[in-house]
Amino acid sequence: MFQVFHNDPDTKARTGELTTPHGVIQTPIFMPVGTQATVKTLHPAEVEELGAQVILGNTYHLWLRPGHETIKELGGLHKFAGWDKPILTDSGGFQVWSLAKLRKISEEGVTFRNHLDGSKMMLSPEVSMEIQSALGSDIAMLYDECPPYPCDRKYAEESTDLTTRWAKRCKEWHMQNKPAAGGLDRAASEAQRQLQFGIVQGSVYADLRERSARALTDLDFDGYAVGGVSVGEPEVEMFRAIDNAVPFLPDNKPRYAMGLGTPPQILEMIGRGVDMFDCVHPTRCARHGQAFTLDGPINIKNGKFAKDPRTITEDCHPHLASFSRAYLRHLFKAGEILALRLLSFHNLHFYLNLTFNARKAIEEGRFTEYKNEFTERYNAKQHS
Amino acid sequence: MFQVFHNDPDTKARTGELTTPHGVIQTPIFMPVGTQATVKTLHPAEVEELGAQVILGNTYHLWLRPGHETIKELGGLHKFAGWDKPILTDSGGFQVWSLAKLRKISEEGVTFRNHLDGSKMMLSPEVSMEIQSALGSDIAMLYDECPPYPCDRKYAEESTDLTTRWAKRCKEWHMQNKPAAGGLDRAASEAQRQLQFGIVQGSVYADLRERSARALTDLDFDGYAVGGVSVGEPEVEMFRAIDNAVPFLPDNKPRYAMGLGTPPQILEMIGRGVDMFDCVHPTRCARHGQAFTLDGPINIKNGKFAKDPRTITEDCHPHLASFSRAYLRHLFKAGEILALRLLSFHNLHFYLNLTFNARKAIEEGRFTEYKNEFTERYNAKQHS
Repeated sequence: MFQVFHNDPDTKARTGELTTPHGVIQTPIFMPVGTQATVKTLHPAEVEELGAQVILGNTYHLWLRPGHETIKELGGLHKFAGWDKPILTDSGGFQVWSLAKLRKISEEGVTFRNHLDGSKMMLSPEVSMEIQSALGSDIAMLYDECPPYPCDRKYAEESTDLTTRWAKRCKEWHMQNKPAAGGLDRAASEAQRQLQFGIVQGSVYADLRERSARALTDLDFDGYAVGGVSVGEPEVEMFRAIDNAVPFLPDNKPRYAMGLGTPPQILEMIGRGVDMFDCVHPTRCARHGQAFTLDGPINIKNGKFAKDPRTITEDCHPHLASFSRAYLRHLFKAGEILALRLLSFHNLHFYLNLTFNARKAIEEGRFTEYKNEFTERYNAKQHS
Repeated sequence: MFQVFHNDPDTKARTGELTTPHGVIQTPIFMPVGTQATVKTLHPAEVEELGAQVILGNTYHLWLRPGHETIKELGGLHKFAGWDKPILTDSGGFQVWSLAKLRKISEEGVTFRNHLDGSKMMLSPEVSMEIQSALGSDIAMLYDECPPYPCDRKYAEESTDLTTRWAKRCKEWHMQNKPAAGGLDRAASEAQRQLQFGIVQGSVYADLRERSARALTDLDFDGYAVGGVSVGEPEVEMFRAIDNAVPFLPDNKPRYAMGLGTPPQILEMIGRGVDMFDCVHPTRCARHGQAFTLDGPINIKNGKFAKDPRTITEDCHPHLASFSRAYLRHLFKAGEILALRLLSFHNLHFYLNLTFNARKAIEEGRFTEYKNEFTERYNAKQHS
């Protein structure tokens, strides 16, 4: 169940609460990515300390290794990964598009060779639902076909309609099997029921986005994502994809922009009505030495930090308060794992704070002010 | 200052307390190794949570990167690494022997090309003392010449005498410069003074070990290490090196076996009168998937753990209590950093507990019983 609490008077930004079997998610929210049943480099207790309310798991990766049946035998993904709060799993559609080889799409599903050992596999709406049911996530994403960018109209139209037909099959599977969160066989009550989110496709075509959004809304899901973004499109197309979908999605359901984006982009999308975000950007950047600050990203490996006694930011989390930029740089240059841990922690703290602060600003009716101030300061040094 | 509290009636085992500028070290003690100013994979808060009372830093590595002067400018090694408790630094002698290239030994010191960029460097007793003073460790090790194993008598004798002459120069440097712990220029009081430990050499020759121990004792240091072990010698030679040195070292000073060993070896050496240990074994093994248990080491990557729902040990630390062996194996197979963190934490916990329990057993007059019970169980499965 999703409840909206505040609507920003100047934008489409809003605050809400989504109730899932493993707890309530307060939106807008950033969701750390735990692809292989771990948020890279971090202990789940640290992810909790950061205030994360929901993390992601990747169906494709966990299906391949260690296998959804193994995870189910061990009590489900929550127990396996030592994480008691909500988990959202994606459908595998995006990874089949981005990682798998020799992909062949049919009405039934997609056959491909996986990126680990090249063996032949088939992912269909029913298989994706079954895997996500075995993982026992709180929110399962519908299996969609993710078109590339750029994409001609004919391909986009056929792909969008295929995603809609697959959405119906996912819904049917859900009605028949009543998947539950947390490693149960079937949901015995509404409180245990795994939620199901549809994914709006349609590439850059406004009418297709509308058609997709309306068709999914008719099927009535627990939430709606905008997919087919983060596929190499320019920023303007990313925002357009959001704007072309949001007006046709119900106000009383959460909206989720998949796999996006930079801090200013996230605020921009909150203003355009998006409630939920996930992105590997903060943890991936961390592993390359990039740290987010209110004055834009810095790369801690830079020589100018070699003797810098300051902490990474003035108000950094206590977890990093005893470490100078010089020390962090040293750890990176020396190839020490603590470097990856500390920057991953810092960057997730930055992203989570971003959505926490956005939520507070919406509550206090000053979202546009917050967004503009943040963005101006964030971009100032990069443009100077 | 070192104070002995309990002497085991049946062995040379004893409990004691060594007071250093950054606090008291209760012996016997295992000291985690923080080569590059970090105990690999761990946050200093975790090292403290494990109950570590002192960690090691490596003079050679820190001299090369980021440089002792940089660390001094930033307030010394304690501040740099975010560690407030005692630190012991080695002299660099062992690394010059094991890592450096084109080594040339003279009376003055050793010239070599470093393993990072091949540039030519010279490490002498005075340079080693100066670096350790800049790092501001609580305990500085004397600069020694580490002979190889095996080693002929002539080389061993010349090397041992060279180490003794270098010990005198280290002592002189110490008297003149009064190095302090914690990044100060000079010790203004005895409480700030950096302690200095001699290193007994002599290879496998009993009379040389005796000669070395007596000469160092005459020079009067704050503690004494047994060096030239962990260089590829068989276990029997390792114990013999200890036995050949201990009788000629003063009872009122701590004794330290450098770079050793397996859990049963550590108990054996405690029984032979050793108080302090350091070893990369627990953290290095961890990075290869090996976990210590009371029933001997297991390799968590083994296929038999693929669906094992049990925690790594029955009484494992709360830090690992929510993770199954199956999960740990999955993390290793998937190349996830959390695997390295968790096993490093576990193995250090095991090693620290080993010396904590030994201390308790000595206090309670049942050390031999503890040692025998531990060793029998530890070896049982490996020999069965």
